[in-house]
Amino acid sequence: MSDHRAIQSDQLDAVSDPAASKARLRLWLKLLKATKHVEGELRESFRTDFDTTLPRFDVMAALDRVEAGLKMSELSSVLRVSNGNVTGIVDRLVDDGVLVRVPVDHDRRATTVRLTRAGKEQFAAMAAKHEAWIDEMLGAVDASEIQAMSDQLERIASKRNKKDT
Amino acid sequence: MSDHRAIQSDQLDAVSDPAASKARLRLWLKLLKATKHVEGELRESFRTDFDTTLPRFDVMAALDRVEAGLKMSELSSVLRVSNGNVTGIVDRLVDDGVLVRVPVDHDRRATTVRLTRAGKEQFAAMAAKHEAWIDEMLGAVDASEIQAMSDQLERIASKRNKKDT
Repeated sequence: MSDHRAIQSDQLDAVSDPAASKARLRLWLKLLKATKHVEGELRESFRTDFDTTLPRFDVMAALDRVEAGLKMSELSSVLRVSNGNVTGIVDRLVDDGVLVRVPVDHDRRATTVRLTRAGKEQFAAMAAKHEAWIDEMLGAVDASEIQAMSDQLERIASKRNKKDT
Repeated sequence: MSDHRAIQSDQLDAVSDPAASKARLRLWLKLLKATKHVEGELRESFRTDFDTTLPRFDVMAALDRVEAGLKMSELSSVLRVSNGNVTGIVDRLVDDGVLVRVPVDHDRRATTVRLTRAGKEQFAAMAAKHEAWIDEMLGAVDASEIQAMSDQLERIASKRNKKDT
């Protein structure tokens, strides 16, 4: 018994239930595969239907939620990507008449970006298609199963990895 | 009635059940968030515990499965990334003594890459930790729920988006 305990304390990294652990590893690979699959299909559909990209859609979606627009730093923080990446995307969307840069009152150096009227219309059309595509692809999940799966995903998303170096 | 049908035929993109469609859209955002969260935690843990990256781990995992090694083109195809990206990663792993390039018999121009003995040992240690991290993070999903969730994810991953341009 004491031997058994000694072995356990040497193997703090070992998982408590090997079968469940292997099943969770397979579950993670499926989670990754399903997400990459849907992202790939969305990327392809945005390209063929709207000649646009997922990052451009994400920028428009972030701005569609705020009438007054966002500073570049706010936009980067909402999208959790670096300012440099967002700048290039915003430049192209401004060229396309989808976004405008607006000076900020009381701050000569700052500008916000917001959707133009044309940009709002384009986004509405894209968002409707986006929802229909997701509905098609996630139609594999029955309405009665959605809640349970959402809860599980939310629990996963809020779980920190134990730092055990 | 005929008016109603005319409207419907004009709106082929409209979803059949708006409430379920919104729920699936929220489910997709949670799927994406959970996946990005786990990926981010793994990236951080690989960095702090092994001073390595997810793409390096993926290359080692692909090679751990084949004793004889893989040609660069085979490795790229397994990993579904471009040859150029894989080349840089392989170069560094060769420098680190984790991989070796081996000439292919009967083909002077071709080489395969395979794990060295040290590489195999390193990979075994990394794979054990990787499994423990996943077990910790996906511990939010009870063992009894794993199968149902796996099935749903498999159905999502095999669903093509309807091309309705």
